[in-house]
Amino acid sequence: MQIAIALYERFTSLDAIGPYQTLKSLPGAETVFVAEQAGPVRDESGTLALVADKSFAEVRRPDIVVVPGGPGQSDQMENEPLLDWLRAVDATTTWTTSVCTGSLALAAAGLLEGRRATSHWLALPELDRLGARSTGERVVFDGKYVTGAGVSAGIDMGLTLAGKIAGDDHARVVQLMTEYDPQPPYDAGSPEKAPAHLVAICRDRSRAEQ
Amino acid sequence: MQIAIALYERFTSLDAIGPYQTLKSLPGAETVFVAEQAGPVRDESGTLALVADKSFAEVRRPDIVVVPGGPGQSDQMENEPLLDWLRAVDATTTWTTSVCTGSLALAAAGLLEGRRATSHWLALPELDRLGARSTGERVVFDGKYVTGAGVSAGIDMGLTLAGKIAGDDHARVVQLMTEYDPQPPYDAGSPEKAPAHLVAICRDRSRAEQ
Repeated sequence: MQIAIALYERFTSLDAIGPYQTLKSLPGAETVFVAEQAGPVRDESGTLALVADKSFAEVRRPDIVVVPGGPGQSDQMENEPLLDWLRAVDATTTWTTSVCTGSLALAAAGLLEGRRATSHWLALPELDRLGARSTGERVVFDGKYVTGAGVSAGIDMGLTLAGKIAGDDHARVVQLMTEYDPQPPYDAGSPEKAPAHLVAICRDRSRAEQ
Repeated sequence: MQIAIALYERFTSLDAIGPYQTLKSLPGAETVFVAEQAGPVRDESGTLALVADKSFAEVRRPDIVVVPGGPGQSDQMENEPLLDWLRAVDATTTWTTSVCTGSLALAAAGLLEGRRATSHWLALPELDRLGARSTGERVVFDGKYVTGAGVSAGIDMGLTLAGKIAGDDHARVVQLMTEYDPQPPYDAGSPEKAPAHLVAICRDRSRAEQ
């Protein structure tokens, strides 16, 4: 089983690492980080590069694809090499997945037409515009398409998918080894829970990044 | 404000990325990934390399240090270049922090003597042996030393520290932008909550990795 995690300039690191850490120990799995060209790929801040060991051209039949998001929505939606690769490999994947605004790439590639899907809460209107039926749920399955909400939701997406593939006890061991017993110091992780003035700050910041 | 995240061969990726994603937007902060030598550093699986942009020799006065853990405890405890660097920079840090078994490096460097600290649940006895006073808490502050429990606890550690440094509203915005509203599909994230036979599997696996 090959798990391919796609990288592109200005992706968000935790979007990629949450599913990586929770999926990589699937029995018989080999994980590969992949990008248009092999080599270091800088994230949204420019202060961290993850190395893509293979190019898109070298990874043609992954079983599982993971697309992380990033703050600049056009980085995903208008990334033709990424969209072409997603369309090509989706023909043979068992699971096609995304975290955060990675779902905008899946939708822009035409893979979520009419499907239930999620994204970062700030990107749900764009997801609808691209033909998906957005929901505010944290992890959404529609057939083989699995989408997670913003950034940290990739951990929940990965654990849920690991359980579907390898059974609940496998996923529970992953949860225990990663000590995933979350205790956030605040209760502001969704726009419904956060104070309205902070939701407004996030909306302004996101507009500035587009 | 400079935040230095230390890398070494066989670190755990999520240990480093959780604090990175939650601390990097601190006002005026510059984050740098650092290792004995600049260049790609492979994680525990060998399937992912993060790039250290600077060597230990180039980063001498960070304000915040973060040490991630990894499954092989000797990778941290017996890593003399890492321990030497930690002792040197700790003289001028504002905060010296760790995630998971990264605390074994802080303790082996002599920085946690008699201090309250935490680590991955499987490593708490080793942390005591190295002179710290271990607790099972998820995030532990003792003076300027901040330690997080296993792997995913780095997100809670980073958010808590971000709130201390830049105020609660800053940290809440980080939580909202990373949509950190966790919904684990299982309740097996600590040895107290997981079924006993899965705790035993993790203990066996950890022994095999030492």
